[in-house]
Amino acid sequence: MSHKLLILAQNENKYRALIEEARLSNLEIVDSSADNVDIALGEPSLIKAALASLPDLKWAQSIWAGIEPLLGPASHRNYILTNARGVFGRLMSEYVIGYILAHERGILQKLEAQKNKTWDDSDTGTLRGKTIGLLGVGSIGAEVARTAKFFGMTVRGYTWSSETSKDVDKYYHEKDLLAFASDLDYLVNILPNTKDTRKIVNAELLGALPSHALFTNVGRGAAVDESALIEALNQNRIAGAVLDVYQQEPLPKEHPFWETKNLLMTFHTAAPSLPEDIVKLFIENYKLFSDGKPLKYQVNFEKGY
Amino acid sequence: MSHKLLILAQNENKYRALIEEARLSNLEIVDSSADNVDIALGEPSLIKAALASLPDLKWAQSIWAGIEPLLGPASHRNYILTNARGVFGRLMSEYVIGYILAHERGILQKLEAQKNKTWDDSDTGTLRGKTIGLLGVGSIGAEVARTAKFFGMTVRGYTWSSETSKDVDKYYHEKDLLAFASDLDYLVNILPNTKDTRKIVNAELLGALPSHALFTNVGRGAAVDESALIEALNQNRIAGAVLDVYQQEPLPKEHPFWETKNLLMTFHTAAPSLPEDIVKLFIENYKLFSDGKPLKYQVNFEKGY
Repeated sequence: MSHKLLILAQNENKYRALIEEARLSNLEIVDSSADNVDIALGEPSLIKAALASLPDLKWAQSIWAGIEPLLGPASHRNYILTNARGVFGRLMSEYVIGYILAHERGILQKLEAQKNKTWDDSDTGTLRGKTIGLLGVGSIGAEVARTAKFFGMTVRGYTWSSETSKDVDKYYHEKDLLAFASDLDYLVNILPNTKDTRKIVNAELLGALPSHALFTNVGRGAAVDESALIEALNQNRIAGAVLDVYQQEPLPKEHPFWETKNLLMTFHTAAPSLPEDIVKLFIENYKLFSDGKPLKYQVNFEKGY
Repeated sequence: MSHKLLILAQNENKYRALIEEARLSNLEIVDSSADNVDIALGEPSLIKAALASLPDLKWAQSIWAGIEPLLGPASHRNYILTNARGVFGRLMSEYVIGYILAHERGILQKLEAQKNKTWDDSDTGTLRGKTIGLLGVGSIGAEVARTAKFFGMTVRGYTWSSETSKDVDKYYHEKDLLAFASDLDYLVNILPNTKDTRKIVNAELLGALPSHALFTNVGRGAAVDESALIEALNQNRIAGAVLDVYQQEPLPKEHPFWETKNLLMTFHTAAPSLPEDIVKLFIENYKLFSDGKPLKYQVNFEKGY
C-alpha cells in the first residue's frame, strides 16, 4: 500500500531532502493540492489549519513537543497524533545549565566590570553542592537531572506520581509542592500545558523559594502566573528568572516582562527542533506505521500529552 | 616533634578556623613574629615576600596552582614546595563550559534582543558534535575533557608527551600544533607558564583556527601573544575570545583588551581557590609531612610545575 505524506513546516525543503535521502518504501511526498493524504509531518498550528482539508489523514507527526493547537475542542481527533520527544532533552539541558552557569559565574556582572575597566576579581559561585528542583521529570527532565548530577548538584523532582529518573535524589508529589520548593537554589519548570499545570508557579510557590533562588521556565508559559512572577522579581523575593516561554507568543511589545529587572528572556528557542533529529524519529515511526504497529510517542488527546 | 605553621593569605582567618577545626596533632598556628616556622601555607607572592625571614622553612603549601613568584632566580629553594592541584578541575570546567554555552546559545545576543523588545527566535547552537581542543591535559584539562565529552563534543588534546585522559579522542604532540588547531570550534589554553609555553598562542596558531572558532585562556597570560590575539579579533579571523588571565595582572587600564571586540574578560576568577578545598589538601599533606613521607603535588623547581 502506498502512502502520501504532506510536510507542513517552515523549513519544508530541509525535511523533504532528508526524507527523500532515506528512500522509504511506498512513500510519496506530495503538496497540499494532493488527494488521499494519509500522513502529515509538521508544526502543530499548520497541521491544525490543514486538518479540514485532510479527510484521509491517519497519522500526524508533530515536529515539536507541544501540540496544544491540536487539542482544542474544534479539532477532530480521528487520527493518530505523535509528538517529538527524546530529542529535546540534551538541548534543553544545555540551555538550563548554560543559564545557571551564567548566573553562578556572574557572566553579566563580569561583562559590566569589563565595560567599566574594573578588575573585578570577586569570587563567583559553583554548581557543586547546589540544589535544583525540576517541576516535571519526563524525558526532558530526566536529561536535565542527569546533567545537574554530573555537575555535583542535588536534584529534586516534582511529578504527579512517576519516579523514573534515577538521577533525582528525592521525589515530591501532589501536595508536597511547597516542601519541594523550600531551600532550592534553582527551580526549573519543564511541565507540559495541561489543566493541572496552569499557573502552578504562583505567588505561593514563588514565596516558598529562598531569596537567592533563580527560576527558569522552559516548559510552557501557561504554567506561570506572570503577575506574581513580576512582583516577586520587583520585590527581590527571588534573585532572578530566565524565561523561554510565555502565555502569549510572540510576547507583545507592551508586556512588562521586557523590562522586568533580573529577568533574562529568550524566545521559545531553548530547544530548537532540528530536522535531523525529527526525521530520524519520523523514519522510525513510518516503519512502525507501515507495519501496522503502535507508534512511538503517541499523544493522548484527553491527557493532553 | 612540634610544627609551627604560618598562614599567608588574604582570608587568613578562614584558613585558621578550618585548620583549627581539624585538630591536627603537634601543629601550632603562629603569626609572623614567631621563630622556627617550618611550614607556610598561602599565596605564592606572600610566601616569596616572607621567605627571607623564614630560615627554618621546610615546607610551603601554595593555595594556588600557579607558583611563578617562587621560581625566580632570587628565591632560595631549600624547602619543599607543593601547589594546589586536583581541586580546580571542576571549577575550571564550569567556567569553560559556561562560557562556551553562553557563546553557543547566544546569551548576549538574546539579551540585546530583549533590550530592543525584539522577539528574536533565530536558532542557537549546540555543543553536541562540536570539537574542542585543549592545550595542556593535566588534571584540569582532564576534567574539562570529561565535561566536554558529557556534552557530546569531540575532544583533542595537545601535550608534550602524556596521554593520560581517556576522554581525549585524539592526542597531538610537539610539531603537530597546527594540525591540532585546524577545524577546531573551541580552543582552550590550560598550560602552565614555562619557557616552552610562552606565546604558544601566536599569530600562526590563531591563523590555523577556523573563523568561527572561540579561544579561551584559563591557563596563564604568558601563553598568549596579546598583540596577535587583538589583531585576529579585530580582523574577524576568529569569532571571539574569553580571557581569564593576562601577561600583566591586574590588567592596566590602558590595555587594549578592555575594548577589543568579541572579547569577554574575567579577572583571574575562573577557578577560585576555596579554603575548604585547600585545607583538605593541606591536612592530607600535613599527615604525610609529619610521617616523613613524600608530599602530594610537589613542584619541580626546574620544570616550573
